Amino acid sequence: MAGPLTGIRVLDLSRVLAGPFCTMILCDLGAEVIKVERPEIGDIARGNGPFIDGISSYFFSINRGKKSLTLDLASPRGKSIFLQLVKHFDILVENFVPGTMEKLGLSYPKVADVNPRIIYASCSGYGQTGPYAHKPAFDVVVQGMGGIMSITGEPVGPPIRPGISIGDIAAGLFTAIGILAALHERSMSGKGQIIDVGMLDCQVAIQENAFARYFATGEVPGPLGTRHPVTTPFQAFETKDGYIVVALVGGERNQWALFCSALGCIDLIDDPRFQTSWDRTVHYDELIPILTRAFKGKTTEEWVGELEEVNVPCGPVNTIDKVAQDPQVLVRNMIVEIPYPQVGEVKVTNTPIKLSRSQCQVSKPAPELGEHAQEVLRNLLGLTQQEIEGLRKDRVI
Amino acid sequence: MAGPLTGIRVLDLSRVLAGPFCTMILCDLGAEVIKVERPEIGDIARGNGPFIDGISSYFFSINRGKKSLTLDLASPRGKSIFLQLVKHFDILVENFVPGTMEKLGLSYPKVADVNPRIIYASCSGYGQTGPYAHKPAFDVVVQGMGGIMSITGEPVGPPIRPGISIGDIAAGLFTAIGILAALHERSMSGKGQIIDVGMLDCQVAIQENAFARYFATGEVPGPLGTRHPVTTPFQAFETKDGYIVVALVGGERNQWALFCSALGCIDLIDDPRFQTSWDRTVHYDELIPILTRAFKGKTTEEWVGELEEVNVPCGPVNTIDKVAQDPQVLVRNMIVEIPYPQVGEVKVTNTPIKLSRSQCQVSKPAPELGEHAQEVLRNLLGLTQQEIEGLRKDRVI
Repeated sequence: MAGPLTGIRVLDLSRVLAGPFCTMILCDLGAEVIKVERPEIGDIARGNGPFIDGISSYFFSINRGKKSLTLDLASPRGKSIFLQLVKHFDILVENFVPGTMEKLGLSYPKVADVNPRIIYASCSGYGQTGPYAHKPAFDVVVQGMGGIMSITGEPVGPPIRPGISIGDIAAGLFTAIGILAALHERSMSGKGQIIDVGMLDCQVAIQENAFARYFATGEVPGPLGTRHPVTTPFQAFETKDGYIVVALVGGERNQWALFCSALGCIDLIDDPRFQTSWDRTVHYDELIPILTRAFKGKTTEEWVGELEEVNVPCGPVNTIDKVAQDPQVLVRNMIVEIPYPQVGEVKVTNTPIKLSRSQCQVSKPAPELGEHAQEVLRNLLGLTQQEIEGLRKDRVI
Repeated sequence: MAGPLTGIRVLDLSRVLAGPFCTMILCDLGAEVIKVERPEIGDIARGNGPFIDGISSYFFSINRGKKSLTLDLASPRGKSIFLQLVKHFDILVENFVPGTMEKLGLSYPKVADVNPRIIYASCSGYGQTGPYAHKPAFDVVVQGMGGIMSITGEPVGPPIRPGISIGDIAAGLFTAIGILAALHERSMSGKGQIIDVGMLDCQVAIQENAFARYFATGEVPGPLGTRHPVTTPFQAFETKDGYIVVALVGGERNQWALFCSALGCIDLIDDPRFQTSWDRTVHYDELIPILTRAFKGKTTEEWVGELEEVNVPCGPVNTIDKVAQDPQVLVRNMIVEIPYPQVGEVKVTNTPIKLSRSQCQVSKPAPELGEHAQEVLRNLLGLTQQEIEGLRKDRVI
């Protein structure tokens, strides 16, 4: 079974995370992704630990399935090879600081001149325009500047970074969406175009609700621990042996009564302060201490059992090891073992996109630096063994 | 200028957040999104505060630009209208608990029978298969079960929820990617298919690095405050008047020396414990107290100025009000004012996807419940005014 993007070729100049996360998604969906890396050095993510027998787990995880071609884009021969390659590709992805592709002589007009159908995706810290455009940026900087650290943490406490590189991940996801939307547009117009995604912009977009609340009330949203800003109870509680999350929303008949009964708090059922989710949000400080006391009386597993019986959405707060063993996660094939020479098998997380007629699946390991140089240059450009050796000797590849 | 998805029609049965966030993205890219809502009640998100003159800011933010058609899918006439409508659509999105569409008689085979080209996207808490498939789930439950709360927070402290509904948002993004990939596939095969996205699966996917570290070392990742697990310093520091984030990565020449000089810590420059990012991660507990002391000596603005001069990526930790006024955010047009009758203007965050030849832009307000019933039923199904009035009287719409 082919992937939905089988036949689509991606020329991937991106490094570290936002760009590679985007092209990983395209690769899992069946696109052929050729990662262009600096000779000898490669993507600096290859140096990020922890390592498995010398292999960067960081690099492996997000570059599985891609091919690697080393190419010195600063050299005239490297540039010339690149512009010949471009003819064979549908998509180009880069996440340099804006201006870099121009300096390399590989700006969109140059590339489009060779291949007007190419979709040229630039993902950067702040986007290609505006006063910060040329500043370098990394995940944590964008998380700080974008506001998410100010709304994550304890109500009274320092800013907290969500435990993932959401600055990069969000930008990678939006870039993939932009690319696929442009691919659809190309199927109508026959033309490619530029995609300009800024990580800071993506932070604003994923915080739409924090901004909506701020615009509606003028109050600056702050960190809320585990709770939701407008729905109550919708948060974690400590139990006898860990934490449980519960999520009551409006609209479910008798849910509040059943929840209170299960907790042994029947006097809350008809309490006028707590009848709707919004009432409970308004009277949050009165309600939560009562629930907090109640939840401490049993284990997480006991509470999950009892609350599920009355259909209250809930679950344990799992650590990563527990998630990796969760029967649902395993049945959904979300953890994949990839055979890798010398090491045996390397485990990575799978794509969460499941299609009925097309295959979306992690298939191959991450490439060694330059592993596919010969294959790509021979198959796409018809270079001979001797020409390839010459390029290698001169450090062009 | 048309959007990249202009001409694509989306029949949107989804409620609250994951589904509506997905269809919001498609709408911003130019698709015509018809939101099918229960007569009289509508999407329960319409009841989520805070309100602006009676309008839910929560609902408005993610449903801007969509059209609303009320339709009682449980009634035979509502079902029949729905199956007639389906013929005119490219995409169907639903985020009911699995089994609901079957109970309504609107399962994929029924819908595909009428329109084999339709792309039928189901977004649910745990996906359509597996032992948890039929459990109801909400954002915070999936955040708890998926592990992200266990890696967010202070190193010693309770689990923290990232300040956004990342359970829903991530699922909305991946569903949009799945839909667009299937749209490309359809341009080749002529056939639609099912997309099955589970929120829990998406949590696993966006935490790829936490899983990679766990699989590499067997150590269970824990919360780390604002720091990065493998790069140092890559975190927030308290200053005289707030917080700053700095991000040093490997590979930049002299960066460490310039950083240390700017901070007035010249004795660290040649300290063998701190030469590479990985060295600094290994000796984290020795390094950070020194940097923490240094950063307290000046204001955030002073530090940002001095560090930018030596090209160290950094920025302030902004609150939402600051982000909403940030010159870069404004130049990038990330905050849009939408005219709305009676209220004046409502501000929402814009799409972060910028294309050079296609328009991606928030254009219209969120719909009132059933606002476009007449337009949709007349234009797509040719119903007369009298027929529409009859449906309204019988509460079918």
